[in-house]
This record gives sequence, structure tokens and C-alpha cells, in this order.
Amino acid sequence: MSGLSFEIAAKYGAARTGAITTPRGTIRTPAFMPVGTAATVKAMHPQAVRALGADIVLANTYHLMLRPSAERIAGLGGLHEFMQWPGPILTDSGGFQVMSLSKLRKLDENGVTFQSHIDGSRHLLTPERSIEIQGLLGSDIQMQFDECVRMPCSAEDAERAMRLSLRWAERSKRAFDPASGHALFAIVQGAADPALRIESAKALVEMGFHGYAIGGLAVGEPQAVMLAMIETVMPHLPEGQPRYLMGVGTPGDLLEAAARGIDMFDCVMPTRAGRHGLVYTRYGRINLRNARHAADKAPIDPQSSCAAARIYSRAYLHHLVKAGEILAMMLLTEINLSYYQELMASIRAAIMENRFDDFRQGVKADWRTGEAKND
Amino acid sequence: MSGLSFEIAAKYGAARTGAITTPRGTIRTPAFMPVGTAATVKAMHPQAVRALGADIVLANTYHLMLRPSAERIAGLGGLHEFMQWPGPILTDSGGFQVMSLSKLRKLDENGVTFQSHIDGSRHLLTPERSIEIQGLLGSDIQMQFDECVRMPCSAEDAERAMRLSLRWAERSKRAFDPASGHALFAIVQGAADPALRIESAKALVEMGFHGYAIGGLAVGEPQAVMLAMIETVMPHLPEGQPRYLMGVGTPGDLLEAAARGIDMFDCVMPTRAGRHGLVYTRYGRINLRNARHAADKAPIDPQSSCAAARIYSRAYLHHLVKAGEILAMMLLTEINLSYYQELMASIRAAIMENRFDDFRQGVKADWRTGEAKND
Repeated sequence: MSGLSFEIAAKYGAARTGAITTPRGTIRTPAFMPVGTAATVKAMHPQAVRALGADIVLANTYHLMLRPSAERIAGLGGLHEFMQWPGPILTDSGGFQVMSLSKLRKLDENGVTFQSHIDGSRHLLTPERSIEIQGLLGSDIQMQFDECVRMPCSAEDAERAMRLSLRWAERSKRAFDPASGHALFAIVQGAADPALRIESAKALVEMGFHGYAIGGLAVGEPQAVMLAMIETVMPHLPEGQPRYLMGVGTPGDLLEAAARGIDMFDCVMPTRAGRHGLVYTRYGRINLRNARHAADKAPIDPQSSCAAARIYSRAYLHHLVKAGEILAMMLLTEINLSYYQELMASIRAAIMENRFDDFRQGVKADWRTGEAKND
Repeated sequence: MSGLSFEIAAKYGAARTGAITTPRGTIRTPAFMPVGTAATVKAMHPQAVRALGADIVLANTYHLMLRPSAERIAGLGGLHEFMQWPGPILTDSGGFQVMSLSKLRKLDENGVTFQSHIDGSRHLLTPERSIEIQGLLGSDIQMQFDECVRMPCSAEDAERAMRLSLRWAERSKRAFDPASGHALFAIVQGAADPALRIESAKALVEMGFHGYAIGGLAVGEPQAVMLAMIETVMPHLPEGQPRYLMGVGTPGDLLEAAARGIDMFDCVMPTRAGRHGLVYTRYGRINLRNARHAADKAPIDPQSSCAAARIYSRAYLHHLVKAGEILAMMLLTEINLSYYQELMASIRAAIMENRFDDFRQGVKADWRTGEAKND
């Protein structure tokens, strides 16, 4: 299939590093995709997101279809032009967020009818409409429409949602235009049931997609459950295609999932944490609201490649957080995205240089020296 | 007096352009000082404030004495180090803000006792304490402690506050350490009464300060009243020292006050407007909340030296404002500060090149072509 190619440059156990090539540019893997929900990675200039090392960002179909609308963005030249992000963009299908954010939703075989959380307007999201919207946005990597159940859930619910998602995968693929030059990823569902997960993976691979995501994880279950599900699914996904773990996660999640062969990640954690006074560092997570930082001249990390982590004192950042200043959100978001991208770069290098196990142990040892764990 | 020198390079009528030199660097005049209330120009990296053309920023004694406290900032190496602004800093005296922001305040001859608007803690601000705080912050240009009355006010109130401010000016000067290498400015008060204004100016010049501010204007009175007061005071201030119009103003205010010989300005307008969807441009003020911008591909100003004004469409900025995104505040603040600094640079050039009247008429003609006036 066109729209995307993937080359694996090196492997270490199940972990691999390589590059996904799209018409919009190359994505170094394992990759972390900052979340640009409403066509902006919150509190960041897009040029700065790129400069910190992101090759691709994620945008949310649900938010953009409601405001300003896919048709409006298409009329303005597409999402890349709109948000001044020239590199690849991945869009979710809207399926997850319509179930978590909208009001008065009703799900049936056809899709989901719902009311906007912004203005109460009524909308219908189906596999066909989701793919149409993602096409109007000009998304480089589009996701099938799926139903994601909350865990824990009954075995019946998990099976019903997984089978509905398979039928919606078929409809998504039929609605997708292979001549668009874009790519379409499927989403493996099945909650925490290994048999359902395997059935989902096999059926999706049978249909054939550019890449395969694992959905419905990191929704509150223990990390061990998440890692077990990854290990369950992996043998049933094609080696030569990208694997994307949706909505994950902490630095510890990224490290362990990459060790198990995941190529792509997205998560609001570094950006959301940055707006709430939390920073991720090589030495663990720091809560800058804590009064212990009020008189601390030390920077966040004098060895960081991120200037914000080097030049401002913890006392100043503490002050900005306490005062509710926008600059606090800007600087902490930048520090967090920088740390996430540095972690991904070091994961890639460790796989490439055949020293991933040593690296993984060293990273975890560093985390344990800090005031809070990163995993 | 040491701490500051001022050289006038050219004059055009009452307008003048030159440079104030301080140990922390040179301030090109007429100068606009962005307001960094709580040790941050809101929504801006300090490096970006400098890059847009600011030579000096203002910080607020009232806010910083309450949080994180002057002693804390002094212990951390002073305000420049704290906020990573290596250039000159001017601090107000706290007099204006203690009267407008604090709770349960009580003013007497000695000073003002008040409760913090943040945590209700009790504080006393006197001329001596204000100067002590400004010294602890390491402020390059410090302001006398004064009482600023609201207009309109009774003749008795205007006279009483002016005379109290004169006595506080004397105490401020006595408390100021001339060996610090810093500068101290006096503040002319007297509401809208020419006789009071002249008496205030003469008495302050008699005492002798590094520079002279005009306070208590741009507090709601018509622009004509403000300009008349400037014209009244100017002949009584020493030609060779800086003149600072506090808290002013719109682009039109800056243009007209510079024409009358003002050398320094500060105002929250460009930063506050930027957080509320308003941008100042060569072609007038634009309200990006207006639905007319929703599908407008045009940038704010394709000729601007500010990238944010050139590369993003009005439609995108409208979207960010409507969505309440932090990036909206970042970009619009940057565009506004850039416009203010460009305006000051062009005022300086027009005075230097002996074409200020033509320039002033041209600027105003451009403003009238836009959707809203800048004056």
C-alpha cells in the first residue's frame, strides 16, 4: 500500500528502531507524538515543538470537527497550513473522545450521534464520516473509527465493542481513498482479554492496513496488564509495519512498551503535566508546587538540551506556578516535551547501538534518585 | 547624580530622541517598557521580549513584595537573575497598586497599611520600605512612593495627595542610596489642576532626581486632558533629564505624548489586549473574536517584522481565541509588543530624520484605514 513506508534499521530483542517515511517527511521510531488537540500543542509555538525533536504531531478529529469544522479547515488549505505544522500529522478517529467528552450520545451499528460539549449542536460520527473528516483535514496517518470501552468492563461488553470495531474497520477501509497518498491504521481492541485481542489483531491484519494500533489501554489498568496485552498482541502483527500504542504514557510506559516492539506513542501527559506544575526529568518527576522549591537556585537539569531546563531556577518556576502565570505553562510544557523527545532519541540510539538493556536499567536507576518516580 | 545618564541625539519641536545609559545597558528613547508585573511579561519568554526591541521592562513592587517577597528575590540574586532579564528594570513604588488592588487599606502620613489580595496577610508600605524593596529587587530605575488619586476628584483631595506625595518624595530620596548605582525618579501629581501640577513639578525639581515621571494620568480622563497636563508640566521639568509618562497608553497616546517630549512609557495594554483577542496593527486595532475573521486566510500584517503577524492566518488566530488556547495569548501578545516596539522605533527614526510631523500624519492615516482606530 502507498502513503507510507517503514524501514527497521536495528533490533534489540523485540525492540526496534527505524523510520516511517511519508510524503510530509520522515518519522524516526520509536516516536513520541505531542498532542495538538485543537490544532495547537497547548502553550507551544509549533516551531518549538519541531525544534525539540518531534517529527509528527497528533490532532483530534472530535475537537476539530466541532470547532472550527473539517470543512472550514479544508477551505483554509488543510490542517498543516492552518496550524503551520509542515510535517506529518496523525489524527485519531474521534471514536474515543466522542464517548468521553460529548453529551447525550447514542451508539448503534451505524455510528454515534451526540451533542457537542461546546455548544450543544447535534452531530453524527460514523466510520465513513470519520474518514471523510480526516481526509478534509489532510491527515497523513488516519485512524479507523472504533469503539473503546472503559476498563474494567464485562466480557460481553469487551467482545461486543471489539466486533463492532472490526466491522467499523472494514467500513473505514472502504471509505478511505488509497490514492490520497495518506495512510490508514487499524486499532486492535479487546480490553484485557487475550483471546479477544488476538482475534481482533488477526482479523485486522487479514483486512490489511498501513499500520496497527493498540487501543483501549492505559485507561486506568496496572502497567503490568498493559504490558501483558502488548506482549499478547505483538506476535500477531506484521513485523514490517508500524505499531502504535495509543494514549501512552509515562516515561516508564514508553520505555517498557518500546522494549516490547512499539514504534509510536502519543499522550497528553507531558503537555497536561506542564500546565499543572509537574516536570519530567532524568531524575524523576518534580512537583514545582511544592514549597521545598521556593528558595532553590538550582535549575531543573543543567545537562538538558532544553534551555528552559537549564537557565531558570526552580525557585522562579515555583513562583510562576504559584502565581498562575502563563509563562509557567510555557516553560514546563517545553521542558516536558524536551524530556520526552530526549528519552525517545536515547531509546533509538540504545537500540541502534545494541545496548538497550544496559540503557534501560540506567534510565530507571536515574529516575529512582529523584523526588518521584517516572514510571 | 550617578546611576543614569541621558543624551538627546535629536529634537523635533518638543519631541526628542536619545538614549538613557545605565550600568545594565542602554535604553533608546522614546522607549516603551513592557509590563512584567510578577517577574514575567505575561505569555512571553524574556528572550522574545528583548528580541522584539524592548530595552527595559517594568516590574511591580506591590506584586513582588507579596509574592515571592523582596527578601526572597534578593536571596536568589536579585530580580534580573530571577526572571532572566539582564537589561535594565524599572520598578514602580507600589503606591498606585496598593490603592487599587489591596484590601482594608488605611493611608496616613506614614504610609499605607493593607491586606494582601492574595492571602490576606497584613503589610505596611512607606516611602522608606518601598525604596528598601526596590533596592532588594536590584531595580535600576526606582520610583518615589506616592499617592495617586482617582479622577475626577475634589480639589481638596487632589491638593492633599499632591502635597503628601511631595513629602513622600523627600522621604524616598532620603531612603535611597546614591552609591547603589541605581536611579530614582520623582512623580509629578496634581490630578487635572494645572496649578497643582506646576507646583508639584517645581518642588520635585528643586529636590533633584535622576528623572521625572508624570503620574495619575490615563486613568479614565479624555486624551485631551492628559495631553494638556503634559503640556502644562513639561516647561517645568529639566530638559536634560528623562521624562516618563506612567501607565500610558494606546498607540495614539504614545504618538501624541512623544510629540510633547515624553521619553518613557509603560502600559499593560499590548499584553492585556493580547490575552483578550485584540491586536494592534499599522492599520488599526483588530478584534479577533469577531466572526468576520473565521474564514480569513490573510495574516495580521504581511509586512510586519514579527513572524507571528506574518505566518498565521486570521482564521487560525480567531480559532485559537475562540477555543481559549494559550497559544492565542502567546501569539497576540507577541504581535502587540512587536507593534508597540516598531511604533517606538519609527518615532525615534522620524525625530532623528527631522520628519516627525509627516510621519505622525501618515501613521494616523494608516490607522484610519483599519477596522478600528488605534487612538
